[in-house]
Amino acid sequence: MNTRSGTTLMGVRDRILDAALDEFFAAGFHGATMRTIANRAGCSAANVYNHFENKSELLVEILRAASDEQFTATRNALRKAGTDPAERWRAAVVAHALFTARNPRECLVANTELRYLGEVDRKRVVGSRDAQEQLFVEIAEQGSRIGIFDVPHVHQAVTAVLTMCAGIPLWFRPDGPLGAAEVADDYGRYALNLLGYRPA
Amino acid sequence: MNTRSGTTLMGVRDRILDAALDEFFAAGFHGATMRTIANRAGCSAANVYNHFENKSELLVEILRAASDEQFTATRNALRKAGTDPAERWRAAVVAHALFTARNPRECLVANTELRYLGEVDRKRVVGSRDAQEQLFVEIAEQGSRIGIFDVPHVHQAVTAVLTMCAGIPLWFRPDGPLGAAEVADDYGRYALNLLGYRPA
Repeated sequence: MNTRSGTTLMGVRDRILDAALDEFFAAGFHGATMRTIANRAGCSAANVYNHFENKSELLVEILRAASDEQFTATRNALRKAGTDPAERWRAAVVAHALFTARNPRECLVANTELRYLGEVDRKRVVGSRDAQEQLFVEIAEQGSRIGIFDVPHVHQAVTAVLTMCAGIPLWFRPDGPLGAAEVADDYGRYALNLLGYRPA
Repeated sequence: MNTRSGTTLMGVRDRILDAALDEFFAAGFHGATMRTIANRAGCSAANVYNHFENKSELLVEILRAASDEQFTATRNALRKAGTDPAERWRAAVVAHALFTARNPRECLVANTELRYLGEVDRKRVVGSRDAQEQLFVEIAEQGSRIGIFDVPHVHQAVTAVLTMCAGIPLWFRPDGPLGAAEVADDYGRYALNLLGYRPA
Protein backbone atom coordinates (compact mmCIF):
# COMPACT_ATOMS: atom_id res chain seq x y z
CA MET A 1 0.00 0.00 0.00
CA ASN A 2 1.30 3.40 -0.96
CA THR A 3 1.79 5.35 2.28
CA ARG A 4 0.87 8.63 0.62
CA SER A 5 -2.55 7.33 -0.50
CA GLY A 6 -3.10 5.14 2.55
CA THR A 7 -5.17 6.19 5.54
CA THR A 8 -6.07 9.84 6.07
CA LEU A 9 -3.79 9.77 9.10
CA MET A 10 -0.78 8.88 6.92
CA GLY A 11 -1.77 11.52 4.39
CA VAL A 12 -1.67 14.29 6.98
CA ARG A 13 1.57 13.05 8.48
CA ASP A 14 3.32 13.05 5.11
CA ARG A 15 1.90 16.46 4.27
CA ILE A 16 3.26 17.86 7.54
CA LEU A 17 6.70 16.37 6.85
CA ASP A 18 6.74 17.87 3.36
CA ALA A 19 5.63 21.25 4.70
CA ALA A 20 8.27 21.14 7.43
CA LEU A 21 10.98 20.41 4.85
CA ASP A 22 9.84 23.41 2.80
CA GLU A 23 9.78 25.59 5.91
CA PHE A 24 13.21 24.46 7.18
CA PHE A 25 14.58 25.09 3.70
CA ALA A 26 13.01 28.56 3.44
CA ALA A 27 13.40 29.86 6.98
CA GLY A 28 15.99 27.59 8.62
CA PHE A 29 15.44 25.45 11.71
CA HIS A 30 15.45 28.47 14.03
CA GLY A 31 13.20 30.54 11.77
CA ALA A 32 10.58 27.79 11.43
CA THR A 33 7.82 27.39 14.02
CA MET A 34 5.24 24.65 14.49
CA ARG A 35 2.67 27.28 13.45
CA THR A 36 4.37 28.24 10.15
CA ILE A 37 4.77 24.54 9.39
CA ALA A 38 1.07 23.96 10.14
CA ASN A 39 0.14 26.87 7.87
CA ARG A 40 2.14 25.38 5.00
CA ALA A 41 0.57 21.97 5.59
CA GLY A 42 -2.93 23.50 5.65
CA CYS A 43 -3.73 22.20 9.12
CA SER A 44 -3.76 23.45 12.70
CA ALA A 45 -0.72 23.62 14.97
CA ALA A 46 -2.57 21.22 17.30
CA ASN A 47 -2.72 18.78 14.42
CA VAL A 48 1.03 19.03 13.92
CA TYR A 49 1.56 18.38 17.65
CA ASN A 50 -0.63 15.25 17.35
CA HIS A 51 2.02 13.78 15.07
CA PHE A 52 5.29 15.33 16.22
CA GLU A 53 6.45 16.42 19.64
CA ASN A 54 8.40 19.43 18.41
CA LYS A 55 10.49 20.88 15.57
CA SER A 56 13.46 18.65 16.39
CA GLU A 57 11.30 15.56 16.01
CA LEU A 58 10.27 16.77 12.54
CA LEU A 59 13.84 17.50 11.50
CA VAL A 60 15.07 14.12 12.77
CA GLU A 61 12.31 12.34 10.87
CA ILE A 62 13.05 14.22 7.62
CA LEU A 63 16.81 13.75 7.77
CA ARG A 64 16.68 10.09 8.74
CA ALA A 65 14.24 9.28 5.96
CA ALA A 66 16.40 11.11 3.40
CA SER A 67 19.58 9.43 4.60
CA ASP A 68 17.95 5.99 4.53
CA GLU A 69 16.64 6.57 1.01
CA GLN A 70 20.03 7.71 -0.20
CA PHE A 71 21.65 4.67 1.39
CA THR A 72 19.14 2.39 -0.33
CA ALA A 73 19.88 4.04 -3.70
CA THR A 74 23.59 3.43 -3.19
CA ARG A 75 23.14 -0.21 -2.19
CA ASN A 76 20.85 -0.84 -5.17
CA ALA A 77 23.54 0.56 -7.48
CA LEU A 78 26.16 -1.63 -5.80
CA ARG A 79 24.09 -4.76 -6.34
CA LYS A 80 24.35 -4.13 -10.10
CA ALA A 81 28.00 -3.06 -10.07
CA GLY A 82 29.77 -6.41 -9.87
CA THR A 83 32.94 -7.01 -7.89
CA ASP A 84 35.60 -4.65 -9.29
CA PRO A 85 36.28 -2.06 -6.53
CA ALA A 86 36.83 0.72 -9.11
CA GLU A 87 33.45 0.07 -10.70
CA ARG A 88 31.82 -0.32 -7.28
CA TRP A 89 33.32 2.97 -6.08
CA ARG A 90 32.21 4.78 -9.23
CA ALA A 91 28.70 3.29 -9.11
CA ALA A 92 28.27 4.14 -5.42
CA VAL A 93 29.35 7.77 -5.92
CA VAL A 94 27.15 8.18 -9.01
CA ALA A 95 24.09 6.90 -7.11
CA HIS A 96 24.91 9.07 -4.08
CA ALA A 97 25.45 12.18 -6.23
CA LEU A 98 22.31 11.52 -8.26
CA PHE A 99 20.20 11.37 -5.11
CA THR A 100 21.70 14.68 -3.98
CA ALA A 101 21.02 16.39 -7.31
CA ARG A 102 17.44 15.12 -7.30
CA ASN A 103 16.68 15.90 -3.63
CA PRO A 104 18.27 19.31 -3.10
CA ARG A 105 15.92 20.44 -0.30
CA GLU A 106 16.61 17.36 1.86
CA CYS A 107 20.36 17.52 1.25
CA LEU A 108 20.72 21.26 1.85
CA VAL A 109 18.66 21.10 5.02
CA ALA A 110 20.77 18.14 6.18
CA ASN A 111 23.97 20.11 5.57
CA THR A 112 22.81 23.31 7.15
CA GLU A 113 20.32 22.51 9.92
CA LEU A 114 21.69 19.27 11.41
CA ARG A 115 24.00 21.24 13.68
CA TYR A 116 21.03 22.86 15.43
CA LEU A 117 19.76 19.52 16.76
CA GLY A 118 20.60 18.56 20.33
CA GLU A 119 23.19 15.83 20.89
CA VAL A 120 20.70 12.97 21.29
CA ASP A 121 18.68 13.90 18.21
CA ARG A 122 21.82 14.53 16.19
CA LYS A 123 23.07 11.04 17.02
CA ARG A 124 19.80 9.54 15.75
CA VAL A 125 20.45 11.11 12.35
CA VAL A 126 24.19 10.72 12.22
CA GLY A 127 24.01 6.95 12.74
CA SER A 128 22.48 6.46 9.31
CA ARG A 129 24.98 8.83 7.70
CA ASP A 130 27.91 7.10 9.38
CA ALA A 131 26.75 3.73 8.08
CA GLN A 132 26.72 5.15 4.53
CA GLU A 133 30.16 6.60 4.95
CA GLN A 134 31.47 3.28 6.27
CA LEU A 135 30.26 1.54 3.12
CA PHE A 136 32.22 3.99 0.95
CA VAL A 137 35.29 3.63 3.16
CA GLU A 138 35.22 -0.17 2.80
CA ILE A 139 35.13 0.04 -0.99
CA ALA A 140 37.94 2.61 -1.07
CA GLU A 141 40.06 0.53 1.31
CA GLN A 142 39.51 -2.58 -0.78
CA GLY A 143 40.76 -0.73 -3.87
CA SER A 144 43.74 0.59 -1.94
CA ARG A 145 44.68 -2.92 -0.80
CA ILE A 146 44.79 -4.23 -4.37
CA GLY A 147 46.73 -1.16 -5.46
CA ILE A 148 44.29 0.52 -7.87
CA PHE A 149 43.74 3.51 -5.53
CA ASP A 150 46.58 5.55 -4.10
CA VAL A 151 45.94 8.27 -1.54
CA PRO A 152 47.07 8.68 2.04
CA HIS A 153 44.21 8.97 4.60
CA VAL A 154 41.59 6.96 2.71
CA HIS A 155 38.85 7.82 5.19
CA GLN A 156 39.49 11.54 4.76
CA ALA A 157 39.45 11.15 0.97
CA VAL A 158 36.05 9.47 1.25
CA THR A 159 34.80 12.33 3.40
CA ALA A 160 36.09 14.79 0.80
CA VAL A 161 34.13 12.98 -1.92
CA LEU A 162 30.93 12.81 0.13
CA THR A 163 31.08 16.52 1.04
CA MET A 164 31.75 17.29 -2.64
CA CYS A 165 28.54 15.43 -3.48
CA ALA A 166 26.69 17.14 -0.63
CA GLY A 167 27.66 20.48 -2.21
CA ILE A 168 25.84 19.73 -5.48
CA PRO A 169 22.57 21.41 -4.41
CA LEU A 170 24.54 24.60 -3.68
CA TRP A 171 24.96 25.17 -7.42
CA PHE A 172 23.07 22.55 -9.44
CA ARG A 173 19.93 23.72 -11.25
CA PRO A 174 17.70 21.15 -12.98
CA ASP A 175 17.22 23.60 -15.88
CA GLY A 176 20.99 24.18 -16.27
CA PRO A 177 23.13 22.93 -19.18
CA LEU A 178 23.81 19.52 -17.57
CA GLY A 179 21.12 17.17 -16.27
CA ALA A 180 21.26 15.40 -12.90
CA ALA A 181 22.36 12.09 -14.46
CA GLU A 182 25.19 13.73 -16.41
CA VAL A 183 26.40 15.62 -13.33
CA ALA A 184 26.29 12.42 -11.27
CA ASP A 185 28.35 10.59 -13.94
CA ASP A 186 30.93 13.39 -13.89
CA TYR A 187 31.14 13.17 -10.11
CA GLY A 188 31.74 9.43 -10.42
CA ARG A 189 34.72 10.22 -12.61
CA TYR A 190 35.98 12.93 -10.25
CA ALA A 191 35.75 10.48 -7.35
CA LEU A 192 37.71 7.82 -9.22
CA ASN A 193 40.34 10.39 -10.15
CA LEU A 194 40.49 11.76 -6.63
CA LEU A 195 41.53 8.40 -5.20
CA GLY A 196 44.43 8.32 -7.67
CA TYR A 197 42.84 5.50 -9.68
CA ARG A 198 45.16 3.50 -11.92
CA PRO A 199 43.65 0.43 -13.62
CA ALA A 200 45.30 -2.79 -12.36
CA MET B 1 47.31 51.03 12.14
CA ASN B 2 45.69 47.90 13.45
CA THR B 3 41.93 48.32 13.02
CA ARG B 4 41.20 46.33 16.16
CA SER B 5 43.25 48.65 18.37
CA GLY B 6 42.35 51.84 16.46
CA THR B 7 39.66 54.26 17.58
CA THR B 8 37.02 53.15 20.07
CA LEU B 9 34.52 53.40 17.21
CA MET B 10 36.40 50.75 15.21
CA GLY B 11 36.70 48.59 18.30
CA VAL B 12 32.96 48.47 18.81
CA ARG B 13 32.27 47.86 15.12
CA ASP B 14 34.62 44.86 15.02
CA ARG B 15 33.21 43.51 18.26
CA ILE B 16 29.70 43.68 16.80
CA LEU B 17 30.82 41.86 13.64
CA ASP B 18 32.46 39.12 15.68
CA ALA B 19 29.39 38.78 17.90
CA ALA B 20 27.13 38.63 14.83
CA LEU B 21 29.26 35.86 13.33
CA ASP B 22 28.98 33.85 16.57
CA GLU B 23 25.26 34.44 16.69
CA PHE B 24 24.65 33.52 13.01
CA PHE B 25 26.72 30.39 13.58
CA ALA B 26 24.84 29.41 16.74
CA ALA B 27 21.28 30.41 15.89
CA GLY B 28 21.23 30.84 12.09
CA PHE B 29 20.35 34.02 10.25
CA HIS B 30 16.64 33.69 11.02
CA GLY B 31 17.24 32.80 14.66
CA ALA B 32 19.54 35.78 15.28
CA THR B 33 18.15 39.19 16.21
CA MET B 34 19.84 42.58 16.50
CA ARG B 35 19.20 42.27 20.25
CA THR B 36 20.87 38.86 20.68
CA ILE B 37 23.81 40.16 18.64
CA ALA B 38 24.01 43.26 20.85
CA ASN B 39 23.95 41.05 23.95
CA ARG B 40 26.85 39.00 22.69
CA ALA B 41 28.78 42.15 21.81
CA GLY B 42 28.11 43.62 25.24
CA CYS B 43 26.44 46.75 23.90
CA SER B 44 22.91 48.05 23.31
CA ALA B 45 20.78 47.25 20.27
CA ALA B 46 20.76 50.98 19.52
CA ASN B 47 24.54 50.81 19.35
CA VAL B 48 24.35 47.97 16.82
CA TYR B 49 21.90 50.03 14.72
CA ASN B 50 24.37 52.93 14.77
CA HIS B 51 26.76 50.77 12.81
CA PHE B 52 24.56 48.45 10.76
CA GLU B 53 21.14 48.99 9.23
CA ASN B 54 19.91 45.44 9.84
CA LYS B 55 20.91 41.78 10.08
CA SER B 56 21.41 41.50 6.33
CA GLU B 57 23.94 44.33 6.41
CA LEU B 58 25.89 42.46 9.10
CA LEU B 59 25.82 39.18 7.18
CA VAL B 60 26.91 40.88 3.95
CA GLU B 61 29.79 42.58 5.75
CA ILE B 62 30.95 39.32 7.39
CA LEU B 63 30.73 37.21 4.25
CA ARG B 64 32.39 39.78 1.99
CA ALA B 65 35.27 40.27 4.40
CA ALA B 66 35.79 36.49 4.69
CA SER B 67 35.63 35.99 0.95
CA ASP B 68 38.08 38.85 0.32
CA GLU B 69 40.50 37.46 2.90
CA GLN B 70 40.31 33.99 1.41
CA PHE B 71 40.91 35.44 -2.06
CA THR B 72 43.95 37.33 -0.78
CA ALA B 73 45.37 34.15 0.78
CA THR B 74 44.98 32.34 -2.55
CA ARG B 75 46.62 35.12 -4.55
CA ASN B 76 49.52 35.31 -2.09
CA ALA B 77 50.07 31.57 -2.53
CA LEU B 78 49.95 31.95 -6.30
CA ARG B 79 52.61 34.66 -6.26
CA LYS B 80 55.00 32.13 -4.76
CA ALA B 81 53.90 29.21 -6.93
CA GLY B 82 55.75 29.95 -10.17
CA THR B 83 54.30 29.32 -13.63
CA ASP B 84 53.55 25.57 -13.85
CA PRO B 85 49.73 25.25 -13.94
CA ALA B 86 49.81 22.01 -11.91
CA GLU B 87 51.80 23.67 -9.13
CA ARG B 88 49.63 26.81 -9.34
CA TRP B 89 46.45 24.72 -9.11
CA ARG B 90 47.77 22.76 -6.15
CA ALA B 91 49.00 25.88 -4.35
CA ALA B 92 45.71 27.73 -4.89
CA VAL B 93 43.64 24.82 -3.55
CA VAL B 94 45.92 24.33 -0.54
CA ALA B 95 45.63 28.03 0.38
CA HIS B 96 41.87 28.00 -0.14
CA ALA B 97 41.43 24.82 1.92
CA LEU B 98 43.71 26.09 4.67
CA PHE B 99 41.65 29.26 5.04
CA THR B 100 38.50 27.13 5.30
CA ALA B 101 39.98 24.85 7.96
CA ARG B 102 41.17 27.84 9.98
CA ASN B 103 37.97 29.91 9.65
CA PRO B 104 35.20 27.37 10.11
CA ARG B 105 32.61 29.83 11.47
CA GLU B 106 32.89 32.18 8.49
CA CYS B 107 32.86 29.35 5.97
CA LEU B 108 29.95 27.45 7.50
CA VAL B 109 27.87 30.60 7.84
CA ALA B 110 28.69 31.47 4.21
CA ASN B 111 27.52 28.02 3.07
CA THR B 112 24.40 27.91 5.12
CA GLU B 113 23.09 31.46 5.58
CA LEU B 114 23.89 33.11 2.24
CA ARG B 115 20.67 31.81 0.74
CA TYR B 116 18.62 33.82 3.23
CA LEU B 117 19.90 37.16 1.91
CA GLY B 118 17.74 39.10 -0.54
CA GLU B 119 18.79 39.18 -4.19
CA VAL B 120 20.62 42.53 -4.02
CA ASP B 121 22.56 41.65 -0.87
CA ARG B 122 23.33 38.18 -2.18
CA LYS B 123 24.83 39.68 -5.32
CA ARG B 124 27.13 41.89 -3.22
CA VAL B 125 28.60 38.78 -1.61
CA VAL B 126 28.55 36.48 -4.60
CA GLY B 127 30.62 38.87 -6.72
CA SER B 128 33.68 38.27 -4.59
CA ARG B 129 33.12 34.50 -4.59
CA ASP B 130 32.65 34.45 -8.35
CA ALA B 131 35.95 36.29 -8.83
CA GLN B 132 37.71 33.63 -6.76
CA GLU B 133 36.08 30.85 -8.72
CA GLN B 134 37.10 32.48 -12.00
CA LEU B 135 40.74 32.48 -10.91
CA PHE B 136 40.59 28.73 -10.25
CA VAL B 137 38.83 28.15 -13.58
CA GLU B 138 41.55 30.01 -15.47
CA ILE B 139 44.30 27.90 -13.91
CA ALA B 140 42.41 24.67 -14.60
CA GLU B 141 41.74 25.70 -18.21
CA GLN B 142 45.37 26.57 -18.73
CA GLY B 143 46.38 23.10 -17.54
CA SER B 144 43.74 21.51 -19.77
CA ARG B 145 45.07 23.41 -22.81
CA ILE B 146 48.58 22.08 -22.34
CA GLY B 147 47.23 18.59 -21.73
CA ILE B 148 48.23 17.96 -18.09
CA PHE B 149 44.59 18.00 -16.90
CA ASP B 150 41.90 15.85 -18.46
CA VAL B 151 38.26 16.23 -17.40
CA PRO B 152 35.18 17.24 -19.33
CA HIS B 153 33.36 20.31 -17.95
CA VAL B 154 36.35 22.03 -16.38
CA HIS B 155 34.21 24.71 -14.72
CA GLN B 156 32.07 22.06 -13.02
CA ALA B 157 35.19 20.24 -11.83
CA VAL B 158 36.42 23.49 -10.28
CA THR B 159 33.07 23.94 -8.54
CA ALA B 160 33.32 20.38 -7.23
CA VAL B 161 36.75 21.14 -5.77
CA LEU B 162 35.63 24.41 -4.18
CA THR B 163 32.55 22.82 -2.59
CA MET B 164 34.76 19.96 -1.35
CA CYS B 165 36.93 22.59 0.38
CA ALA B 166 33.87 24.42 1.66
CA GLY B 167 32.81 21.17 3.31
CA ILE B 168 35.93 20.94 5.47
CA PRO B 169 34.38 22.74 8.47
CA LEU B 170 31.56 20.17 8.46
CA TRP B 171 33.98 17.55 9.80
CA PHE B 172 37.39 19.07 10.54
CA ARG B 173 38.32 19.47 14.22
CA PRO B 174 41.53 21.33 15.13
CA ASP B 175 42.18 18.76 17.86
CA GLY B 176 41.73 15.81 15.47
CA PRO B 177 44.51 13.51 14.21
CA LEU B 178 45.43 15.77 11.26
CA GLY B 179 46.25 19.48 11.56
CA ALA B 180 44.84 22.16 9.26
CA ALA B 181 48.03 22.37 7.18
CA GLU B 182 48.16 18.61 6.64
CA VAL B 183 44.48 18.48 5.65
CA ALA B 184 45.00 21.40 3.24
CA ASP B 185 47.96 19.58 1.64
CA ASP B 186 45.87 16.45 1.22
CA TYR B 187 43.13 18.50 -0.43
CA GLY B 188 45.73 19.94 -2.82
CA ARG B 189 46.54 16.40 -3.86
CA TYR B 190 42.87 15.41 -4.18
CA ALA B 191 42.29 18.45 -6.37
CA LEU B 192 45.22 17.59 -8.65
CA ASN B 193 43.99 14.00 -8.91
CA LEU B 194 40.41 15.10 -9.52
CA LEU B 195 41.41 16.99 -12.67
CA GLY B 196 43.04 13.82 -14.01
CA TYR B 197 46.54 15.25 -13.64
CA ARG B 198 49.27 13.59 -15.64
CA PRO B 199 52.69 15.27 -15.58
CA ALA B 200 53.65 16.59 -19.04
